[in-house]
Amino acid sequence: MTDFPQLDGFRGAPGVVRLIGHRGARGVMPENTMEGFVFTLNVGVRAMEFDVVLTRDRTPVITHNHHFLNAATRGTDGNWLTGEELKVSELSLSEIRQLDVGGLDGRTVYGKRFPDQVFLSGIRVPSLADLLDFAVQPEGQDLLLLLEMKSEPVVNGQDHDSTAIVREVVKDVRARGLEQRTILHSFDWTLLEECARVAPDMPRSFLSQMPERADEPGEDSQKSVAPDFNALGMSIPKAVAQAGGRMWCPHYLDVTPDLVAEAHDLGLLVSTWTVNETADICAAIDAGVDGIITDYPGRAQRILLSRGLTW
Amino acid sequence: MTDFPQLDGFRGAPGVVRLIGHRGARGVMPENTMEGFVFTLNVGVRAMEFDVVLTRDRTPVITHNHHFLNAATRGTDGNWLTGEELKVSELSLSEIRQLDVGGLDGRTVYGKRFPDQVFLSGIRVPSLADLLDFAVQPEGQDLLLLLEMKSEPVVNGQDHDSTAIVREVVKDVRARGLEQRTILHSFDWTLLEECARVAPDMPRSFLSQMPERADEPGEDSQKSVAPDFNALGMSIPKAVAQAGGRMWCPHYLDVTPDLVAEAHDLGLLVSTWTVNETADICAAIDAGVDGIITDYPGRAQRILLSRGLTW
Repeated sequence: MTDFPQLDGFRGAPGVVRLIGHRGARGVMPENTMEGFVFTLNVGVRAMEFDVVLTRDRTPVITHNHHFLNAATRGTDGNWLTGEELKVSELSLSEIRQLDVGGLDGRTVYGKRFPDQVFLSGIRVPSLADLLDFAVQPEGQDLLLLLEMKSEPVVNGQDHDSTAIVREVVKDVRARGLEQRTILHSFDWTLLEECARVAPDMPRSFLSQMPERADEPGEDSQKSVAPDFNALGMSIPKAVAQAGGRMWCPHYLDVTPDLVAEAHDLGLLVSTWTVNETADICAAIDAGVDGIITDYPGRAQRILLSRGLTW
Repeated sequence: MTDFPQLDGFRGAPGVVRLIGHRGARGVMPENTMEGFVFTLNVGVRAMEFDVVLTRDRTPVITHNHHFLNAATRGTDGNWLTGEELKVSELSLSEIRQLDVGGLDGRTVYGKRFPDQVFLSGIRVPSLADLLDFAVQPEGQDLLLLLEMKSEPVVNGQDHDSTAIVREVVKDVRARGLEQRTILHSFDWTLLEECARVAPDMPRSFLSQMPERADEPGEDSQKSVAPDFNALGMSIPKAVAQAGGRMWCPHYLDVTPDLVAEAHDLGLLVSTWTVNETADICAAIDAGVDGIITDYPGRAQRILLSRGLTW
């Protein structure tokens, strides 16, 4: 037991490495959809890492980028969107509910990354409230939330209060009493400072990616909102601990056994993202991480079992 | 429309190749389980190909082999079975319900064939009645059944009435009024003769595999119960048509465009099994089959869409 009970679900132990479904189970099911979250929970993976962005009407919705990726988004005519991508912050929730995010366009670079993902139709972008409402139902009661907030310093060409998302998210979580099942998580460490102010009762998870890592195709870069990790003047685990974080979430290529050990010495948990290939999953296990964020929960389960581990 | 409405769900058309979930979706979910069937239906694949064997108490249960494969079967202690494999025909349904078929042993050849299959616990062998009961519920109403009967000429060392399975299966199907959503399907063409006698109101599907094809690891060979396909004295499609079959289901390596065309000229549908690799799925499409039986419904959906097809 800890001060924050949700951390127990993310803490490794002898024989245990935690699995965390990335946007549900992106390798199998459309990402950041209720269908994907329900699938992942039903196959025995309790923790979900997912992304929240604010709509024009300030509703937190679950989607990764600030724009809806054309390769993953169809309009009311059933065709994938083309041209300039729609911006989440410029659409109302009801406009967003017209979009269908059930299937990837296999002709695109992004679509080719997930060739086994099923193709569904009529699948809507969930609001954060949709997922939280599920989490308070009996069938969702095991769910743990690693809730990534995406900051947007400039909206409609203007600076704005980019920390508003924190308050909207916290309001939604509190309204359902889910403070003890949620970890607040971001690349934007200034958002996480705001979290410490408005929600000291929820633990915080600090994402990192060294600037030399390539961004992944089809995914917004987080480099502009993250700290300059080469200029911290200390190791990243130390900086996370100094900022009061409870979990560090490095890119899988940035993980070393020494850094994991250092993080553990500092009292941090370590979960790494997004770990999909067998060799990378094995390397993360060998490095001693607490948790593995993966698009392929079945594959990760099977690798753990083959090494005498569970999740 | 045809005399047998269920055939429409297996018939290709311009722009349409049908997908049939193999034992549910064996690449993703434990095979021949309710969890796998529900997953497959929920991702938009209506037709399921699955296997039925009789228990000692003559209950049709859904499992592939005459023995429970140790690599896929755990006992009440949670460990995979070892030693001589348990025989379905020697166990009662209630004994079978003690087994857990939710997870593969990744150390085995069979386990290694499906590295992404999720690992579940507490998953029971379904009876045929379980699946049929689901099919008559609103959530199962779209399901179509390609119901493979496994014959067993010798039980407990003795010859016995190996066609009993036909009568038990037909009784279960009739009890729920599912005659128009079921196709009776076997490698054992003598069982299919019995089907013609006891259930002329259901269409029949004839499986084939040329004897020179290797059996798949961990799967009972069907060669001893199937006809000698090299000694038919005619093409297999002709023999299926002559036997009154409505569908021919060849092994995917036995499919050629000429044989598919011949089958179509004879009024047969053609579905091919078990087609998992991208190149093989493409070859089956190119050969003009009506349906593809696959362990990877998401992959097959995406390949169809990338070629401007649907299912």
